[in-house]
Amino acid sequence: MTIGGGTGSFTLLTGLKKYPINISAIVSMADDGGSTGVLRDELGVLPPGDVRQCLVSLSQSSNIMRKLLNYRFEEGGLKGHNFGNLLLSALEKISGGFAEGVEEAMKILNVKGKVIPVTNQDARLYMELKCKTVLNGENEINHAFDIQRKGIKRLYFSPKVKANPKAIKKIKEADLIILGPGNHYCSILPNLIVDGMPKAIRESKAKVVYNCNLVNKAGHTERFDLDDYVDSINGYLGAKRVDYAVYNTKKPSNKLIAKYESHKELLVEFGEEKRKERNYQVIQADLLSKEKVKYSQADAISSIRSFIRHDSDKLAKVLVDIIKG
Amino acid sequence: MTIGGGTGSFTLLTGLKKYPINISAIVSMADDGGSTGVLRDELGVLPPGDVRQCLVSLSQSSNIMRKLLNYRFEEGGLKGHNFGNLLLSALEKISGGFAEGVEEAMKILNVKGKVIPVTNQDARLYMELKCKTVLNGENEINHAFDIQRKGIKRLYFSPKVKANPKAIKKIKEADLIILGPGNHYCSILPNLIVDGMPKAIRESKAKVVYNCNLVNKAGHTERFDLDDYVDSINGYLGAKRVDYAVYNTKKPSNKLIAKYESHKELLVEFGEEKRKERNYQVIQADLLSKEKVKYSQADAISSIRSFIRHDSDKLAKVLVDIIKG
Repeated sequence: MTIGGGTGSFTLLTGLKKYPINISAIVSMADDGGSTGVLRDELGVLPPGDVRQCLVSLSQSSNIMRKLLNYRFEEGGLKGHNFGNLLLSALEKISGGFAEGVEEAMKILNVKGKVIPVTNQDARLYMELKCKTVLNGENEINHAFDIQRKGIKRLYFSPKVKANPKAIKKIKEADLIILGPGNHYCSILPNLIVDGMPKAIRESKAKVVYNCNLVNKAGHTERFDLDDYVDSINGYLGAKRVDYAVYNTKKPSNKLIAKYESHKELLVEFGEEKRKERNYQVIQADLLSKEKVKYSQADAISSIRSFIRHDSDKLAKVLVDIIKG
Repeated sequence: MTIGGGTGSFTLLTGLKKYPINISAIVSMADDGGSTGVLRDELGVLPPGDVRQCLVSLSQSSNIMRKLLNYRFEEGGLKGHNFGNLLLSALEKISGGFAEGVEEAMKILNVKGKVIPVTNQDARLYMELKCKTVLNGENEINHAFDIQRKGIKRLYFSPKVKANPKAIKKIKEADLIILGPGNHYCSILPNLIVDGMPKAIRESKAKVVYNCNLVNKAGHTERFDLDDYVDSINGYLGAKRVDYAVYNTKKPSNKLIAKYESHKELLVEFGEEKRKERNYQVIQADLLSKEKVKYSQADAISSIRSFIRHDSDKLAKVLVDIIKG
């Protein structure tokens, strides 16, 4: 099973879908920007964006259906709205709840496996900094580029939210729990601050894998190395629970690295010598996607935002090898 | 095959779907009001509303999918937009044309038979009155309640539109061509003023059936009787082409009749004695829907607007009996 949200989950699940394994994707419910934010505000629905990306990645429907779900209206009053988000919002209204709506969407889209919102409760993500400033909402946190410098005191939902019982059940049954890749504070950790999630993961018999990001996010996780990410995840889990950390060894082109560095986004390093011992195994492999792959507009959820990205198939292969043992 | 649009086609096709016959539904492309009007204006798409109703009626998808297609957003910037209309508009954008979008929608919705827009060209419906006034758009015509008194000179599209070649092909192949029921000037005739349509129907070997409306529309077809409707249809077809006229004999309750009459909407009469001979056969039957049937909100396209309506199954049975001969 996977825990995440956003583009990271999309990439991961697109690769895993090709294997004969049972997939459950637990999805962050923190998003409040863009089309998702407008729908939350105006319709009072739960955030559809991250769930949509997971549904699309696991859908076995036609290509046009997948394009449709990612289609974004470009004009008029609908401008910026994503069709898949509208679908999930309408299904939530019709079927009487977000969880029920997601169930219906899984049928309509012929989804392989399960997509499970980490919580069925509506709440807002907040981040309190050491200077007492409180950032209001995932979108504001995502776009704040000084939180690391100011120091993060606490990441939390208000009101508090409980884990979706279906998520807890799947964690108990899982052989492998896969965390990441993804935006650390906005996609990954919002799953681990949901009441009941850390305990369930701690008590699960599953092996826990952390797929480390390729690039650090400016102002959020600058200069984080692999160990820093794992320590952070373990901190939120309340135990040294990560068994494997998957790290990419293939370097992008110097030109691309320079482009990222100009935005203060540096490659995540692995300081192998830094620690004598680790209580998790580091799996090193070439996980890099070819840079110049052309994505169709509809399928490219973040082709503009990130060109240094995981290759779905390479990543999935490493994870399936772990499952095989 | 059926020719129409709006609620009339929805009712008719819902009944016909249950029989093992090949159905092609040719659909009016004149709508420019409500959600459809906004989408035409803002996105530059062709009108999805009537096509949507036909797709829903012929869809063999789950009930929730049908509900979804008729779902109307109730709040915020999306207020008034119908989900099915958004689906068709997004598919038009993705697949490069309205006709292509409708083809994709038929696959996604597992439609029995074919739904065929009467034209693939974008145009506006106009009505010129004898006083030289020109009504601009289907929505304006629909809401003008003095056109009959002032006298109708001409109903036309501008720019002129040609029939969809697929519609012409289906008319040639048809055994039975079914016109109506439906809004006379806004749903039925807009199919017959499309270049190529009257000629194709005249030259087809199919029998032509006209399903007469139950109630006259105030200011449009007040005091029309069955013969008036058939004469009007034949006039637009350019020949006495109607073979059968299907007329309802079952009277609604006095209370319901009175309610309609208070809006100047009187039952359509059949003055059997008025003519010695008719070159079409009148089929009289109980076609009335039970008044108090509860439609689910999503399925009831016009449960508020009209409670005197055809019963899908009764109407379909009469038509299938004609096919059987």
